[in-house]
Amino acid sequence: MGWKQLIAEAGTRIAPYVRRTPVVMAMFDGHWVALKLEQMQHTGSFKARGAFNTLLQADVPEAGIVAASGGNHGAAVAYAAARLGHKARIYVPQIAGPSKIELIRAQGAVLQVVSGAYADAADRARDWRVATGAMEVHPYDAGATVAGQGTVMAEWEDQGYDADTVLIAVGGGGLIAGALAWLAGRRRVVAVEPETSCALHAALQGGAPVDVKVSGVAANALGARRIGGICFDLARAQGIESVLVSDAAILEAQAVLWRETRQLVEPAGAAALAALLSGAYRPAKGERVAVLVCGGNITPDPLT
Amino acid sequence: MGWKQLIAEAGTRIAPYVRRTPVVMAMFDGHWVALKLEQMQHTGSFKARGAFNTLLQADVPEAGIVAASGGNHGAAVAYAAARLGHKARIYVPQIAGPSKIELIRAQGAVLQVVSGAYADAADRARDWRVATGAMEVHPYDAGATVAGQGTVMAEWEDQGYDADTVLIAVGGGGLIAGALAWLAGRRRVVAVEPETSCALHAALQGGAPVDVKVSGVAANALGARRIGGICFDLARAQGIESVLVSDAAILEAQAVLWRETRQLVEPAGAAALAALLSGAYRPAKGERVAVLVCGGNITPDPLT
Repeated sequence: MGWKQLIAEAGTRIAPYVRRTPVVMAMFDGHWVALKLEQMQHTGSFKARGAFNTLLQADVPEAGIVAASGGNHGAAVAYAAARLGHKARIYVPQIAGPSKIELIRAQGAVLQVVSGAYADAADRARDWRVATGAMEVHPYDAGATVAGQGTVMAEWEDQGYDADTVLIAVGGGGLIAGALAWLAGRRRVVAVEPETSCALHAALQGGAPVDVKVSGVAANALGARRIGGICFDLARAQGIESVLVSDAAILEAQAVLWRETRQLVEPAGAAALAALLSGAYRPAKGERVAVLVCGGNITPDPLT
Repeated sequence: MGWKQLIAEAGTRIAPYVRRTPVVMAMFDGHWVALKLEQMQHTGSFKARGAFNTLLQADVPEAGIVAASGGNHGAAVAYAAARLGHKARIYVPQIAGPSKIELIRAQGAVLQVVSGAYADAADRARDWRVATGAMEVHPYDAGATVAGQGTVMAEWEDQGYDADTVLIAVGGGGLIAGALAWLAGRRRVVAVEPETSCALHAALQGGAPVDVKVSGVAANALGARRIGGICFDLARAQGIESVLVSDAAILEAQAVLWRETRQLVEPAGAAALAALLSGAYRPAKGERVAVLVCGGNITPDPLT
């Protein structure tokens, strides 16, 4: 089955469980930009789409579900598991931060906070799966995850998407892989990564996925050590443009989003806009640009 | 000219200057609710609509523009004045709070912070108008202001509004007056006020506008001492329902909006939802409810 059909089926499958997120036009630096506010998705990021698409197709074992996550994927898996009546165990690194850790706990999952980085949490999740037979939900490099994330772009087209180019932040690559899989070259996609967490950029430069060091203000969402193979293959095949943004540019874009549109997002959620505002991506004259706002789980939580 | 035509003309007039704000469906306590995110409007509230509608029709004198405001109206007038090349002088009471005061200053207006309440700022603005011939923009009780605010509801209908009932927070009554003027009884409108700032409720009970005391968490946005005459006449003529919410219910709704939809709003922006969540307004079985989210200028600013 091709991606287009997988994503269309995912859209039908998850529709009762996910939110159709709004799109708004806003002007930044004299450019009209279409923003899809996917941080309004349940648990504050697009991750709920992949989680539901995975769980709704699965024969979940008695041992339940396990996931490792920088925070957003874990929250989404915990939410989807609770919604569907499964038990869930989530491993997160300390750098997930208190907002995301509390968010996961609030979904009712068993939460294991691991010292170290995301990769350490992933090791622990794998150990748990091996030991118990629990089902693991991969945060980005699995077909059902990618097909679920692809429903963002399918939904956006259904809402009248008409930009020439969409800017998408990349961590492990699940979200952009879904967009590339859905669009299949019909629209231009630009990958945006932090300078300090750029697994896709390094892979495209080197010709294959490689391990990179990760750090910076968006590391708990975009800090994958190695790009997912599905993402890499799609990105290379489509020859997409890959740009990098500094932490300062990300924080400035976060401030601009709040100031201009009263959307308060986490740094990762502002990274794609940062590429436009900082000039890391410069649209041609007349080029219509869209920005996918992907996550809103900011630390500290503004209301606590 | 009737209200419907005035509002339709206002919509055309202000369209180049205001944002078409998004609508999203969200579920609260098992009810689907349509939310219009008007806090995404320029300067963080619906007030930009009335301000532009007023200034675009006016022959602005050399002395410029003056306004008194709890904060949101002042920011909107300052923004519109700057955008249209007029000078503006804004009087705000100290209770506007640092976020709103800074927001007004950032628009380039001359800012006068007044001790006391909104009414004291209004006195000072009137004095300035009398002394200089500046044009005063009333925050709620003027035809051009009401027609501008009415474009929110007109726009929402154009976006496919199909609720039976819309809940709208009331301060001086400009926003709800605009909605009542546009809807003209075609849809049910419920007025929501804080228990501690309820000028419309008191007027409807007493049969005429009366002075009330104002306080509470939403006082800098909803704390009008007396309901506007335009609002009162429309509300009485249409026999609308008026409900009250506690400060605790407002703060709970603010937390729920953030938790469930990642929309961070000021207390006034959550007051209408509070009526639904607290049971102050209880929809009938099957009744489709909409909530107008009207302001997002929260103190403290979450990014400073």
